[in-house]
This record gives sequence, structure tokens and C-alpha cells, in this order.
Amino acid sequence: MNDLHAEPDAVRVLAALEATPDRVVEITSELVRRDTAYARDTPYAGPAAPHGQEADAQAWIGAFLERLGFDVQIWEPDPAEVAGHPMYPDGLTWEGRPVLAAVKRGSGGGRSLILNGHLDTVRCEPLERWTRDPWTPTVEGDRLYGRGSCDMKGGIAAALAAAEAIVQSGAELAGDLHVQIAPDEETTGMGVVALLRRGERADACLVPEPSSFQVYAAYRGILYGNVTVAGLPGHAEIPQAHHSLGGGVNAIDQMRKVMDAFDALSEEWQGRPDKQHPLLSTPRIFPTRIAGGEFIASLPGACTMDFDLTYLPGEAEEGGWGGNVRREVEEHLARAAAADPWLREHPPVVTWTQDYPAAETPLDTAFGGVLCDASAAQGVESAIDGFDTWADAGTYLLDGIPAYCYGPGAIERAHMIDEWVSVDELRTCAAVIARVVTDWCGAPAAD
Amino acid sequence: MNDLHAEPDAVRVLAALEATPDRVVEITSELVRRDTAYARDTPYAGPAAPHGQEADAQAWIGAFLERLGFDVQIWEPDPAEVAGHPMYPDGLTWEGRPVLAAVKRGSGGGRSLILNGHLDTVRCEPLERWTRDPWTPTVEGDRLYGRGSCDMKGGIAAALAAAEAIVQSGAELAGDLHVQIAPDEETTGMGVVALLRRGERADACLVPEPSSFQVYAAYRGILYGNVTVAGLPGHAEIPQAHHSLGGGVNAIDQMRKVMDAFDALSEEWQGRPDKQHPLLSTPRIFPTRIAGGEFIASLPGACTMDFDLTYLPGEAEEGGWGGNVRREVEEHLARAAAADPWLREHPPVVTWTQDYPAAETPLDTAFGGVLCDASAAQGVESAIDGFDTWADAGTYLLDGIPAYCYGPGAIERAHMIDEWVSVDELRTCAAVIARVVTDWCGAPAAD
Repeated sequence: MNDLHAEPDAVRVLAALEATPDRVVEITSELVRRDTAYARDTPYAGPAAPHGQEADAQAWIGAFLERLGFDVQIWEPDPAEVAGHPMYPDGLTWEGRPVLAAVKRGSGGGRSLILNGHLDTVRCEPLERWTRDPWTPTVEGDRLYGRGSCDMKGGIAAALAAAEAIVQSGAELAGDLHVQIAPDEETTGMGVVALLRRGERADACLVPEPSSFQVYAAYRGILYGNVTVAGLPGHAEIPQAHHSLGGGVNAIDQMRKVMDAFDALSEEWQGRPDKQHPLLSTPRIFPTRIAGGEFIASLPGACTMDFDLTYLPGEAEEGGWGGNVRREVEEHLARAAAADPWLREHPPVVTWTQDYPAAETPLDTAFGGVLCDASAAQGVESAIDGFDTWADAGTYLLDGIPAYCYGPGAIERAHMIDEWVSVDELRTCAAVIARVVTDWCGAPAAD
Repeated sequence: MNDLHAEPDAVRVLAALEATPDRVVEITSELVRRDTAYARDTPYAGPAAPHGQEADAQAWIGAFLERLGFDVQIWEPDPAEVAGHPMYPDGLTWEGRPVLAAVKRGSGGGRSLILNGHLDTVRCEPLERWTRDPWTPTVEGDRLYGRGSCDMKGGIAAALAAAEAIVQSGAELAGDLHVQIAPDEETTGMGVVALLRRGERADACLVPEPSSFQVYAAYRGILYGNVTVAGLPGHAEIPQAHHSLGGGVNAIDQMRKVMDAFDALSEEWQGRPDKQHPLLSTPRIFPTRIAGGEFIASLPGACTMDFDLTYLPGEAEEGGWGGNVRREVEEHLARAAAADPWLREHPPVVTWTQDYPAAETPLDTAFGGVLCDASAAQGVESAIDGFDTWADAGTYLLDGIPAYCYGPGAIERAHMIDEWVSVDELRTCAAVIARVVTDWCGAPAAD
């Protein structure tokens, strides 16, 4: 007779997961079914930005965890608690976008762990190029399609499936197991800031972001900003005198010079020693949105471009912030403008909107070893790697909590049309998380 | 004793104008005071585009002319009358933007004349760069400031002041004098098309557009269109694989290639014999509006650019239209796309939105001579010249009516911030128009 309770906790938990292979697919589908795309134009839209089904999704997760005996709190943080934070965009509220913090207390004496995820997704435009409805989860072969399936509702589902298997198989945890779900990683990252202001800390944090099962230990910082250039409106079909004589100037053509200057800066960075990192790609700066011109028959009077750039932990100022890099961009653009007859007199105006700090985990943490071992035990070779963008893990890290991203799916598939995640990888991830939790939070082995 | 009625009509009319030098300023101010800027995004906004005070301005002009004994009609044309015209944008209506046709019948046997003008203006953005309120006419020294003062409420005012002086001084006209005011020259030019469908024709037409008192006898055609290029959305901070491997592609960067191709085409045109004209500038093609990108952290999935280009009468097809030029642009862009790895597979999509025909007046018309003589008699040296943009005059011309632009102010000042017109030029224009009307429509000189 085979007494399951005589076996190690991890074995029983894994057996429970193997007995219900569709569970992680069901949970992912429940989450994908809820439209949690960030509001259009967030973070610029301000307090009035409409929300989707974030609150409903959090309520679903909360009910799931309460059934497992977690103490669950769901709340809309007060912006006053975090105002002035460098990542906080003016006017942001959490109305309709609550955060969730849940904890299942351990029996005592063990190491605590936070499983963190974000339930917001990027938007679906251009929607007409999707071949499937983004909010109707569809399984085809090994693929589960839907917006957020890869980034990162699949990862959240793997964590929830692991938690369910742990509780239902009666595994004993000595340390506290936390689940913290943010609604806004894609836009502001302020949800985790608010969670940490009010919530509990832990000895380690695992964020099942799509990492192709690599263990992400370093994160690039991100700077968002915009540039506005002025032209001088004039009749588009009438040849214009030189601007020194009052002739009109095309602001879109001026913005092309700014984009050329950004290209040159990106190229310069590719060869510069301070722009190299063993785990992270060399940064670039480039446009992600542009809007210019007023009327089809007038020379454009103004053009505005949003841009995106990244920076490395080694370039960051105290606290991980990108002040040095901001100054470099401004000085480069000022030099380019000084060499141009129009821009010299009408310099481009740079506005910095958000700063997401760069961060690195020390390479030799105990939790990193547990994570790599758990992955290997499930047959997945994982190495410590870097994550080329910022993620909520960086906020835990800068708060002193070792934090790693490790999850199913490739970040390259995130944000894309017809986003999908591998069902097999979802199952593997649930098993790895179950091993990590039992190893890290479980009772110390008897001597 | 000086019997005014014994003097020639022109002398009495000019004396009447000289006796009331502020009249043309008052009339210009009445028109500038009414916000008749075209609705934002016209002609794209369609039937719901809001209107300004066009109807009120037409009513004011109508009342002015009725007091002078004109038969005045003001109406909103039925779009069905002109649907299918190449200048007609889908969805256009004249709701709130009526046309005005007025006629003062001559005593018979004389030549008839249309005085035509448009009361719409371009918009004021960027409004914050105006140093004066655009809708509050302000006289400072010789300058009358305000949106539309130069293009072309000043010209309309000169025509109205001339008509008033003619009537009040009792000058006898043998031919009919028409006044036709359109509400939409800046956007569609369809007002004059509608006027000519229902209104009366005449032996000549004078349009007091700002021409620096040159006599504009040739007009470039205009083509408006837009180009859309596709990118492939992806996570902006994650380095992307080559697009053949599914990596994201920045649509704004693709649009920069399209703008480069347009620059190359413009340069090629500068030296080409078929792109030269004795009275008109060599055409160019360039962007006037641009919009691209969806989210600051995603590679832009699409970018759209509106463009403006002109063409010469010699390049036009039957009727003055720009079909040949459209094909040349499409073929040039297709060649540029074929040389690019991404655009070859995702060719830019060109949509042509409007075509304004090129037109030329024969150089030796009787009316052209009358106009040049009247100008010279007022001390202004005028020469036959070309108008580098399209104007409502082209519609009269293609309908077989000799039509010239001649008016106060420089077209280079049209559409600009702090638009203004010279008060002295307004007075001169009123005097020239008075001379033209009495010379052209007046009773034949006794043998």
C-alpha cells in the first residue's frame, strides 16, 4: 500500500498537478477572458482613464485564494500614499484597478516568499490584424491564444495552480506564502509600489513573467519622454521664403532631424564600454508615437514624438534612477539642434514623463539556487540571464527583496498580435513553482 | 460749381471711396470678428463637422448687398447636386455653411462680372503663439490684424466697399454685377462648384485673393492624399529578431523611408523640363500631418501621413485633373518600397483624397487688360503672374469664365500666426475694383 503522506511534500504536490493537467489551462482562460488591457493613452489619460475588468479579475483571483485558506485583501490604493514617487504619473488613480495581497501563514520558522504577477495587458490595436478574438481564450494544439496569455496571465495561472496543488495535497509550509497581484505593470508599475507601502515583505520574490524559463536577475531601466518641435505654419502650396524672412517651416521635417539625432546616439551607444552589460542588451533610443501637423494644406506648426529608451544598472544613479542618461540625451539633442539653422533658434523641448529604475540581483543568492535547481528537476535547463526591460521585480529588488522573473513563454511574443503561450510550458511552470515553494517555504529538513 | 454728375462714373465712385476711408476697414473688421475657420479635420470630419459663424457672416454680407439693391440668395446646396465631382469629399454637407449669390442687374447691353470671395479661413492652431486674439480685429498703424484679414476677408471687404461706392454714387452699370461668396475654399472648393451649378455665369470673374496686387492668371493643381505603412507591434524594450523571424518592426521608422522617397521625388522634379512653368513654381511633395504608434512601450504597428503636392497645367489630364501625377507618385513609391526588405512585403498604401485641377487663363483676354489698366491707374504696377496654389478662380476658369485673382496682401502671409493686411492696400484694392467694375460693366463709351 502506497502511503502518499509518507512521501516528501514536493512529490505529492507534483502528483496533484499531474492529476489535473487542464487546471492551469482553465485558470489561464478565466483570466484571459477578462479584458484587462490598460486604458488607451495611459499613463497620459489621467484620472478619467476608463478601466476594463481588472476589478473583476482581482475578485476572481481573491475568491480562488480564499478557497485555499489565504487571507486576501483587495483595495484601491490612495494616490497620496505614493505621490512624488519617480514612477508616479500625475493624476493616476487606482479607481476600478485594485491591487491584491494575499498570504497563507506558514507554521513558523521558515523562509517567506512572494509570488507576484500583473494582470494588466497591453492593448490589442491594430485589432483588425488579429486572426482570433483576443479576449476569447482558444487552445489549438499546444498553444493557448489570447491577449495576456503569455504576458502574464499564464504565469499567474501557473502560480495559482501550484498554490492549489500545495494546499490540496496537504503540504506543510513553514514560511509564509504571499500572492501579490498588481493591475498596472504595463503602464506605471505603481501597483507594486503601493503594495509594498502597505503590504508585507518577504525573504524572496518570484515573478512568473515570460522568460523562456531563464532566470532573470538583471533589469534595464526605462525612460519615457516626449519631444516637441515647433515649425512655423504657412500655406503648404506657396513656396516659402527662408525662415529668417518669415517663411513657414515644416515641423514634421524638423522632427525627422530629431529622429536622425536619436539614431546617431543609438549607434554611438552600441560601441561604448559603459553601454555594455554581460546579461543585458545595449540600449537604444527611438520613437514609439508621433503626431504632427494641423491641416493638410498648412505647413505643420508643431510635431510631438514619444520616445522610449533603456539604461543599464551600471549607468544608474543612487536608487537605480536614470538622471545621468536623461542629461546625456538632452545634451546630445542640444548639440544636434545647435548645428541646425532652425532648431538652433527653436530648440526641441524634451519632457521626461516616467523613470523605471535599473536593478540587478546579486548572482549568488540562496533563492536563485533553489529556483535553478527546481527548474532543472523539472527537466528545464535554466541559466541566470538579464531581462531587457523593466518589470515589477525591479521594485521588489530595490526594496531589498531578491526577486527573479522566471516563467513560461518568450518575452518576444509579449505585446504581439495573436499572442499565445505553450500549454506544456504552463504545466511545467506550475510544477517548478510548486517545487520552489515547497523547497523554500517548506519545513527545514530533519537533521 | 462742381457738378459731380457731369464727371465720369469712375471719378465719382473713387471720390465716394476717398470720402469714407474707414469703410473698408469697418467691413473687414465685421468679417474678421466672425469665426469662420474651417472645422477641425475637415475634409475628413464628414457630415458631423461643426461649423462656426459662416451662416452669420453670409447673412451680414447678404443684408449689406440688399441695402445696395442686389437680389440676394443664400442657401445650403444639396450635396446630391454635386456628388461624384472629383473635389467632393464623401460626406460633405453645407449644413451651417451656406453659399451666397447676389446680382445687381445692369441697364442692359454691357459685360457682366462676378466678384467672388471665400469667407472661410484656416484654423488658428497653435493658438498660444498668437500675440493677439485672432477673432478680434485690431488696427495698429497700417496693419489690420486678425485671422482671415489677409486671406481673404480684406479682399471681400474691398469688393463690398467698391459696390457700395458704385451704388451710392449713382454710377450706371450696363452689365450685371454679381457677388458670389463661398464658405469652403480652404477645405473643398465645392462651394463655387455648387454656385455655378445653380447660379448664373458671367463674362469675367475677379477674385480679390491676396496676390500682392499681381494679376494671377495660372493656378497649380493640388493633390491631397495619405500614406499608411504597417509595422509589426512588439515590446519596445526587448531587442527584436529580424522581421522574417517574427520580430517587431517600427512603423514610424518605415514612414521615415516614405518621407525620404518623397524628398527624392521632389528633388528630381526640380530639374525636369515638364515640371517647369513660366509663371508657376516647380512642384514638391511633402508631409503635412503625421500620426503613428499606439503606446509608448510598444513598437508602432501603423503610421499614417497626409501629404500635399501640386502640379502644373501642362501636366494635367483633360479637364485639368492630376491622374498622370498620381500615377507617377505611386510608381515612385512602389520602386522605393521594392528596394526595402520590409516595405517590399508590406507596401505603403496610398489613398488619394482630393484633386484640385490646374488651370490657366489665356494671357490676352480683354478683362485682363481692364484689370491691369485699373491697377496702373491707381498707381500700382501689376503684371500677369501665376498663383502657386489652387483657388476658387480655377473653378470659374474651367467653366469657361476668364478669372483672375488680384488683391491686397501677400499670399505668403496667409495661414500664418498673427495674420494681417495693410489698411492702405485695402483702400487701394477697393479703388481698383471700383474702376474695374465701372470700366467693364459700365455703359459703352459714346462714339
